[in-house]
Amino acid sequence: MSLMRIDMSRTSATMEPLPAKKPQDRMVGGRAIIDWFMTERVSPRIHPLSVGSPFIAAPGILAGTGAPSAGRISIGGKSPLTGGIKEANAGGTAAYRLGRLGISAIVVEGKASEWTVLRVGSKGAAFEPASDVVGLDNYEACAKLRERYGEKVGIIITGPAGERLYANSTVAVTDLEGRPCRHAARGGVGAIMGAKRLKAIVIDDTDTSLRKASDQAAFLSAVKSAIETMKTEGPYCDIVHTKSTVWSLDIDNGQGALQTYNYHRGSFDKAGNINADRFMELNRARVGSSGMGHSCSPGCVVQCSNLFYGPTGELVTAAFEYETLTFLGSNLGIDDIDAIARMDRKCDGLGIDTIETGSAIGILSDVGLFEFGDAERAEALIEEIAKGTLMGRVLGNGTQLTAKVFGIDRVPTVKGQAISAHSGRALKGWGVTFATSPQGADHTAGPVAWGDFLSPVGQVALSRDSQIINTAIDATGLCHFTFAFIYPQIIMPMINAFLGTDFTLDDFLGLGKEMLLRERSFNLKAGIGPGADALPEWMRFEPLPPKNSVFDVPQEEIDEFFNFELSTGGPDISKLDSPYS
Amino acid sequence: MSLMRIDMSRTSATMEPLPAKKPQDRMVGGRAIIDWFMTERVSPRIHPLSVGSPFIAAPGILAGTGAPSAGRISIGGKSPLTGGIKEANAGGTAAYRLGRLGISAIVVEGKASEWTVLRVGSKGAAFEPASDVVGLDNYEACAKLRERYGEKVGIIITGPAGERLYANSTVAVTDLEGRPCRHAARGGVGAIMGAKRLKAIVIDDTDTSLRKASDQAAFLSAVKSAIETMKTEGPYCDIVHTKSTVWSLDIDNGQGALQTYNYHRGSFDKAGNINADRFMELNRARVGSSGMGHSCSPGCVVQCSNLFYGPTGELVTAAFEYETLTFLGSNLGIDDIDAIARMDRKCDGLGIDTIETGSAIGILSDVGLFEFGDAERAEALIEEIAKGTLMGRVLGNGTQLTAKVFGIDRVPTVKGQAISAHSGRALKGWGVTFATSPQGADHTAGPVAWGDFLSPVGQVALSRDSQIINTAIDATGLCHFTFAFIYPQIIMPMINAFLGTDFTLDDFLGLGKEMLLRERSFNLKAGIGPGADALPEWMRFEPLPPKNSVFDVPQEEIDEFFNFELSTGGPDISKLDSPYS
Repeated sequence: MSLMRIDMSRTSATMEPLPAKKPQDRMVGGRAIIDWFMTERVSPRIHPLSVGSPFIAAPGILAGTGAPSAGRISIGGKSPLTGGIKEANAGGTAAYRLGRLGISAIVVEGKASEWTVLRVGSKGAAFEPASDVVGLDNYEACAKLRERYGEKVGIIITGPAGERLYANSTVAVTDLEGRPCRHAARGGVGAIMGAKRLKAIVIDDTDTSLRKASDQAAFLSAVKSAIETMKTEGPYCDIVHTKSTVWSLDIDNGQGALQTYNYHRGSFDKAGNINADRFMELNRARVGSSGMGHSCSPGCVVQCSNLFYGPTGELVTAAFEYETLTFLGSNLGIDDIDAIARMDRKCDGLGIDTIETGSAIGILSDVGLFEFGDAERAEALIEEIAKGTLMGRVLGNGTQLTAKVFGIDRVPTVKGQAISAHSGRALKGWGVTFATSPQGADHTAGPVAWGDFLSPVGQVALSRDSQIINTAIDATGLCHFTFAFIYPQIIMPMINAFLGTDFTLDDFLGLGKEMLLRERSFNLKAGIGPGADALPEWMRFEPLPPKNSVFDVPQEEIDEFFNFELSTGGPDISKLDSPYS
Repeated sequence: MSLMRIDMSRTSATMEPLPAKKPQDRMVGGRAIIDWFMTERVSPRIHPLSVGSPFIAAPGILAGTGAPSAGRISIGGKSPLTGGIKEANAGGTAAYRLGRLGISAIVVEGKASEWTVLRVGSKGAAFEPASDVVGLDNYEACAKLRERYGEKVGIIITGPAGERLYANSTVAVTDLEGRPCRHAARGGVGAIMGAKRLKAIVIDDTDTSLRKASDQAAFLSAVKSAIETMKTEGPYCDIVHTKSTVWSLDIDNGQGALQTYNYHRGSFDKAGNINADRFMELNRARVGSSGMGHSCSPGCVVQCSNLFYGPTGELVTAAFEYETLTFLGSNLGIDDIDAIARMDRKCDGLGIDTIETGSAIGILSDVGLFEFGDAERAEALIEEIAKGTLMGRVLGNGTQLTAKVFGIDRVPTVKGQAISAHSGRALKGWGVTFATSPQGADHTAGPVAWGDFLSPVGQVALSRDSQIINTAIDATGLCHFTFAFIYPQIIMPMINAFLGTDFTLDDFLGLGKEMLLRERSFNLKAGIGPGADALPEWMRFEPLPPKNSVFDVPQEEIDEFFNFELSTGGPDISKLDSPYS
């Protein structure tokens, strides 16, 4: 496995071995590669859209090995949205194919003179013109690219939003059916890619096979055992297979933790119109199946992705997640699930994050430019983002910028990134995660789905443990959904059998800690101070109905977050008491 | 002397003694009060426009005493532009009158239900409606207020830009003739004031007299001696009296340090059309005098302010400074001094900083929305800021936001604030000041007007010394122009005679150091990291013609800026070798 270094200015590709200073560095993959490269090789002060700012796509260490649900890819660099380090994670087929090709990461620097497609295959890399796909909706562009390069390629693509260098632009990855619906959505990674004039990476793994483990028999046995554990013990596997992430909507609504009406409420009076039951009921009526249980990537055991069909039975959108239903739905007071699905498809085509988009539109409600429930207006605003009008540019640059333009002081962001699903005022451990993650507010950085959510006590330790684990998992390519809570039994045997090592769980957690510290050190040098580890002050004063809770985890405790000595050593999984189980 | 605490929510005013923990705290005035209040009493994480974010107006400790050129007022709080602590400094009559009233600072918190005028006089404070002046140009508003409250009041006012909460909005202070031309211009202090719905503070010092010193005879003698020294030894006094700050234009142009064509050049081919000679020549032809040598505040010995007249002899603008001629002139490629004067007047009326405005408009040249030299277009864009169109809102929120909206990575800001006059690539000590000042890039934070400008050697120490001195001076209300380089002889005797103390110069410099450390500590807690102490990376790579110099002061040295042990102890004034002398 090695790095593929791409210089867009010279259209050159070179392979470089992955350096390993200590034995544990063999676990460096995915997000860990981004962390390592950005802290070792890049000036933290570089502008995210400048020529020298790298765009990195890195599968995890278990990509293409046959490990279950190991198809996640880390996309990152320096975030145009937060100004800090960024890893955004997606499913799809790219990680799997890159793994089979023996590529640990593609690191793209420089800037091409024309929009370019980078073709990567077993014979190396090639640079080809992208002129015919520039400006196209991601779905159209990917259809064209698959026509040209074959149906079996994996595609990593930046959309029209990334071309326009919006700080809220995604990188899309095609799923097994070639749909660009799996998004590395947060932090504006699409603009980092766009700034290189790299329109798409097309990955062809023809003539390759699954990577072989160091001890193949032990690996297969570990894989088999992992799959069994996931099916029998993973608390979420069944639920998210059956109802996808949309299942969370009722849970959060019940907890008073559903971002609603521009973060003014924690529950939505019309939640029943946009929840999983409604989703499945409509699908069943329209196409005869729930639309659930779809795979986002090869070898996924959980299959939490979904498909949503319109009134005439046409596919409207895929990977229609809980976060989208929250931010384009309840947060905007919109309960028309068909309208939300259309917007999701539009956002996927354009390459913008639905969380940041819904959050930014929500801000307009404070200045009379948006009325809750007005789906038509929301769709029109997304159309403005697509067209690149000045309002579109403002919204396309995210929540914080939109708030600044309109002089709003009630800004729901941390480190410039919109606070995502699961309200931190009602679920205080999540609040700590939003406050402290070097990635900015992000629900995937370290879920805290256990304990007494409303109590401020002990939440920093819970979030710390969760972030350490989830960060380490982001090095493997394994999906958080199954592994965040049952990892000890199944992750280490697979890693060790594959690498031929005998790393302990402590080694693995050590990697997670090192990654977090690298990310934070990058941020400090990039100009993000320790004081940025906080929820917005107003969340400490404005009660969130219906629980009327404020965020009251003491800031002094939060300020100790990166003191890893204070960790509890991880959640006791025998005592899991989760509303999600 | 005491603090006047204003709660706009309750329309209450209370007086509070100034706490003093140590003897040296008696020197706490002006900027030092802002530093003290913000670090002791305010959460650094508060949103600058939120109800709890204070607006502070503080004259220096020598205000209203009869000390020469002591009429500066510090305006500040938390900056909507930088997100850090902010002090912006202005002349005018407010400091003098507040001093005579015995008010060390007005600290305004809360938010009024309606726009309000705060009247301050010897009988205390009163809250009165501002409805008839809201939305008016500052000149019109001040004319109305003087009609109502008398010609002799001093006025502190936020303009239409501050009402709109633009991050680039100023607070204007009236001069001796009642013109709102003296601006606390930087960092969006007008929006902090606007967020309180405080339109204006009207200060009436009728029935008061000059403050008496502890040892009045010694004070008068120190004042007399100071005036003599300023007149005979102050290197700038004569020059700026004769030519105002506009004199710098030729100097910087010659040094290759004049911000020109959106920071693409360090000299302007048409500088002769906008320099001091041209300024004076036009004035002489139009009204028979140079327009120079005007006082910005009572008791000024230097009188570096100016008046500029139009073709028919009408006064177009006052306090038409070098920075304005740079940023609305050379930086936009505009050499029509009459157009620049009109824009200056418009900016003064609207309450926006000409530096940030010209810098933001310059950014549009990168995306084809502005052509260098197009004065009509620049005037139209300022009109958009006035009207609050979306483009106006974008520009009104400054250079960095404008760049982000348009995906520009060549951003000439530090800590979100446009890099001001005196290019840091050609004058590297100034570059260090821009990089390190907790106030963001600001030419007043610590001028470095001596030494070998082009050499990177020793510049950190020079900037450090300069910032320590200039910061301490900002506590006194004394004007930088005269005191920054000749302070030891004249400042301490005045302070000591006035306070009845025997502070040493080291005590005074100690105050400057404490202020800087307080400001930086506030910033770190506010989320601005140590990495923000840097010029933009591109200034290290893009040579600035005609000197073709890049900024090459080692970042490692800059990172040591706040290690005050490394100070040289201040410039050796006997060895001053300044192009300005």
